[in-house]
Amino acid sequence: MRRTNLSKLIVALLAVVMCMACADVPSGENYSFKDGMIVFDEPARVAGQESMLGFAAEPIPNVRVGFIGLGMRGPGAVNRFTHIEGVEIKGLCDLEQSNVSKCQAMLERASKPKAEEYVGEEAYKELCERDDVDLIYIATDWIHHVPIALYAMEHGKHVAIEVPAATSVEECWQLVDTSERTRRHCMMLENCVYDFFELTCLNMAQQGVFGEILHAEGAYIHNLEPYWDSYHSNWRLDFNQKHRGDVYATHGFGPVCQALNIHRGNRLTYLVCMDTKSVNGLELAKERMGVQEFANADHTTTLVKTELGQTIEIQHNVYTPRPYNRLYQLTGTKGFANKYPIQGFTFTEGMLKEGVLPEGARLNPHGFASDEIEAAALAAYKHPIHQEIEEKAKQVGGHGGMDFVMDYRLIYCLQNGLPLDQDVYDAAEWSCIGELSATSAKHNSMPVAVPDFTRGEWNKLQGLKFHTK
Amino acid sequence: MRRTNLSKLIVALLAVVMCMACADVPSGENYSFKDGMIVFDEPARVAGQESMLGFAAEPIPNVRVGFIGLGMRGPGAVNRFTHIEGVEIKGLCDLEQSNVSKCQAMLERASKPKAEEYVGEEAYKELCERDDVDLIYIATDWIHHVPIALYAMEHGKHVAIEVPAATSVEECWQLVDTSERTRRHCMMLENCVYDFFELTCLNMAQQGVFGEILHAEGAYIHNLEPYWDSYHSNWRLDFNQKHRGDVYATHGFGPVCQALNIHRGNRLTYLVCMDTKSVNGLELAKERMGVQEFANADHTTTLVKTELGQTIEIQHNVYTPRPYNRLYQLTGTKGFANKYPIQGFTFTEGMLKEGVLPEGARLNPHGFASDEIEAAALAAYKHPIHQEIEEKAKQVGGHGGMDFVMDYRLIYCLQNGLPLDQDVYDAAEWSCIGELSATSAKHNSMPVAVPDFTRGEWNKLQGLKFHTK
Repeated sequence: MRRTNLSKLIVALLAVVMCMACADVPSGENYSFKDGMIVFDEPARVAGQESMLGFAAEPIPNVRVGFIGLGMRGPGAVNRFTHIEGVEIKGLCDLEQSNVSKCQAMLERASKPKAEEYVGEEAYKELCERDDVDLIYIATDWIHHVPIALYAMEHGKHVAIEVPAATSVEECWQLVDTSERTRRHCMMLENCVYDFFELTCLNMAQQGVFGEILHAEGAYIHNLEPYWDSYHSNWRLDFNQKHRGDVYATHGFGPVCQALNIHRGNRLTYLVCMDTKSVNGLELAKERMGVQEFANADHTTTLVKTELGQTIEIQHNVYTPRPYNRLYQLTGTKGFANKYPIQGFTFTEGMLKEGVLPEGARLNPHGFASDEIEAAALAAYKHPIHQEIEEKAKQVGGHGGMDFVMDYRLIYCLQNGLPLDQDVYDAAEWSCIGELSATSAKHNSMPVAVPDFTRGEWNKLQGLKFHTK
Repeated sequence: MRRTNLSKLIVALLAVVMCMACADVPSGENYSFKDGMIVFDEPARVAGQESMLGFAAEPIPNVRVGFIGLGMRGPGAVNRFTHIEGVEIKGLCDLEQSNVSKCQAMLERASKPKAEEYVGEEAYKELCERDDVDLIYIATDWIHHVPIALYAMEHGKHVAIEVPAATSVEECWQLVDTSERTRRHCMMLENCVYDFFELTCLNMAQQGVFGEILHAEGAYIHNLEPYWDSYHSNWRLDFNQKHRGDVYATHGFGPVCQALNIHRGNRLTYLVCMDTKSVNGLELAKERMGVQEFANADHTTTLVKTELGQTIEIQHNVYTPRPYNRLYQLTGTKGFANKYPIQGFTFTEGMLKEGVLPEGARLNPHGFASDEIEAAALAAYKHPIHQEIEEKAKQVGGHGGMDFVMDYRLIYCLQNGLPLDQDVYDAAEWSCIGELSATSAKHNSMPVAVPDFTRGEWNKLQGLKFHTK
C-alpha cells in the first residue's frame, strides 16, 4: 500500500467517524453541544465593566422621568406616577400624537406641569439625550425594549423596561454589559412579584414557613382572543408568529425565582422545553396575517433546574379557552402554597410563627389549611412593603394595585440611593427563557444551559433583599 | 514515514476523534444515543408471536379466579368479586396465612364456596398451575408483578396486574412478548381511568367537546407519610430508595393516554424528566432503613410528546405536605377540563350537544363554566358504563366505586369474549415511564425515545373503544 493511499485512507476514515459522531449533535450560530447539553456562547466581561450586584446610585430626591411607549401599558404608568411624590414627568414619547396627547391630558387633570412631547420612530433619541432626565420608562412593543434601553443608558439614564426586557440571549447580554459599563440601573418592570399573594408568600418563604422549597411553578395562561386588536400594527401576534418557545415567561417565572434566591446564593443551571403543535395560533395568523406558518406553540412547557437541586416549571398558553392562570405554586419540604385556580396553603406543625395559629385550629399536612388559618397566616406574614403602601396602591390601582407598588418601589429606591428590587441580572435571567426554551424545543427538548449573567458571582449575595432606608 | 508509523497514526487519530465525539454522549447497558436522543434497544418480534391489538378470547361464562397478594389491594378486590355474577374464587395466595384467612372469612360472610389456600414465597406457582383457573389477579408488591404474570400466562391463564404492571422497560417487553406468544390477556388494573370525572371527560373528548386536545396533565401527588408502615417489609420505600424517576405514573398517565388515543391512531414519541434532590425521602430512608442515600426525588416532573404533536405532563411526589392531586387536566383547542384542586370546565360556543346548555346560560371562554352548566354537562355526557353500573359501584365501593367498575368491566369482557378496555400495550406504555424518566433525569433531562410496544402497529386501531355485546 502506498503512502498516498494510506493518507487518503486516514482522511476517509476520519470523515466517516466525524460524520457518525456529529450527525445527531445540535449546533447553531451562537451555541454548541457540550457535555450532553446545548451551551450558548458567553462573552467575557470586557475591561471597564464592573458587576452591578448590589449597585446603588447616588440618591435622586426628585426623579425626572421620560416615558417611551404610550399605547398600552404606558398611560397607566403615567397616571400612577402622578400619584408618587418627588417625581417630575419631563417627556412623553410615542409613535402616535394621539397617545401622547391622552397622557398630556392626564397630567393636566392631575394639575401637573406639561411634559415635552416626542412623536415618531426616532423621537425617543431626543428624549434620551436630554440632560434633565434621570429615568427612562419603556413600555413599547417587545422588539424596541433593548435598542431604546441601550440608547438611554449610553446617555446616562437609568432605565425601567416592561416585560420581557429582552427577546434574545444576545439582547440579554447587551443589557448586562451596557448597564455594567455605564453604571446605570436597568430594571425590568415585572409587576407580578409585587402582587399581594406572591409577596406574602415570599415573606413566608424567607422566614422558612415552607421549609426548603424544592419545586415551584409559574405560568402565563391567558386566552388573548379579545386583545389581539389592541397591539399597535399587530406587533404581538407578529412576534409570536416568528418566535417559538416561552416568549412571555417573566410573570410566572419572576416571582418563583425570587423565592428561590436566584443569583443570590442560587442559580439557574439548565432547562428543557416541550411544546405542542400550533392550531389556534396558526388559525389566528391565517385570518389576521394571511400567513400559513406560526412558530409559537399553543401550549409551551419549560422545566428549569437550579444549582441547589430544585425544579421550576413554567407554562405559556395565550391561545386556547381556559381560565386565566399564573400558577404561582411553591412546594416545600414543610409546606405548600398555591394561587391558581384556587388560593391555598398547606402548613405543618411548628413552621408558623408563635401565635399565628388561631385558638384550637388544627393543621392538616394532607390538605389545604382552613379559611380561618389561611386568613391568619396572610395577615401575620403581610410583607412590610404592603403594610406600608397596600392601601394607597389599591386606591390608585393598576392590576389591583401591584403596578403601583412596583412604580412606588422603583422611585423610592432611586430617591434614597438604594439597590433596586430587580437588578439587570434578574431582567436577563427572566427574559432569556424565550430563546433558550425555543432552542430546546427545536432540538426535541434537549437540555440547554442557562447562561450565568453574573459571570460567576451568583453566590456573592446571600438571599433577596428589598432595601429600605 | 514508515507504514507502521502511519498505521499507528491512523489508530491514534481515530481514537482522538472518537473520544472527542463521544465524550458527552450518554450510553448504557440497554440504550444508545441516536439522533440527539437516548433510544432503548427494541427486541424484534420472534416467530410464533402475534399482535394482541384487538385480541378477544373465547367467552368464559363463569370466570374462575385466583388472587395473589392479599396484603393491601387484594382483600378489597376479593370483596368486590363477591358482588360480581358469574365469578368463582378458586384460590387465595399470600406470603402470610393471616391475610389468606381474612379473605377466606370474607367469602364465608358472602356465602361463597371456600377457596383453596396458598401460602409462601413460591406458593403462587401451584395456583397458576391449576387447570380450573381462568384469571390470575395479581396485587403483590411491584417487583413480583411480572415474574408472577409471566408464570401465569405460561400456564394458560389471563392476568390482571395492579399498577405499575412492570418496573422496567425490559419487564414491559417481557409482558408484551409473553402475552403475544401465549395469546393470553394481560391487563393492568389502572382504576383511575374508571373514575367518574375521568370517564365522563373521556366521553366528552371522544365526542369532540374540547376540540382537538393539545396538552394534558396527570399526577400522583400524595403525601404517603401515614402509610409507609402498611407496606409488607417496607417494600415501597425500599423500591423508591433504589429507583429514580416517576415510579408510579399510571394513575395520572393512564386516563390522559386514553383521551389521546395512544396506540390507537397516536403514539408516545419521546419524554424528558427533571427532578428535585431528595430531602424528605432521604430523611425517611435514614429513619426507617438506616441508609444514607435515596434515589427517588421528592418531586419528579416528566414531559411526554406524542406523534400528533401533543404534550403530556406527569408529576410524582409522595413525600411533601400537599393536598392529594392527580391533576387530570385536558387543554383542547375548543375547551378545557380540570379535576384538581377544583373540578371545572371551560366550554365554547357550539361544542356541547344540542340541548345540554340550560336555558339562558352563557358560556365564558375565559373562565370556568357555572355550576349549573357543569352539572348539565356532566349529566349529558355520563359514560354508558357509568349509566349501567355507577349505582351498584357506589354501593360496593373501592375508591368511591371506580375499583368495582374496573373489576366489573374486566369480568364482563371475559364473559362475553370481548377485547379488554386496557390491553398489554397500555400496560407497557404506562409502566415504562418509570425507567425512561429515570434515564432522562440521570442524563440532565436528555430526551428519551418511548419504545413502540406495538412494533409499528400504533396506527392500526382508530380510537379507544370500550366494547359491549
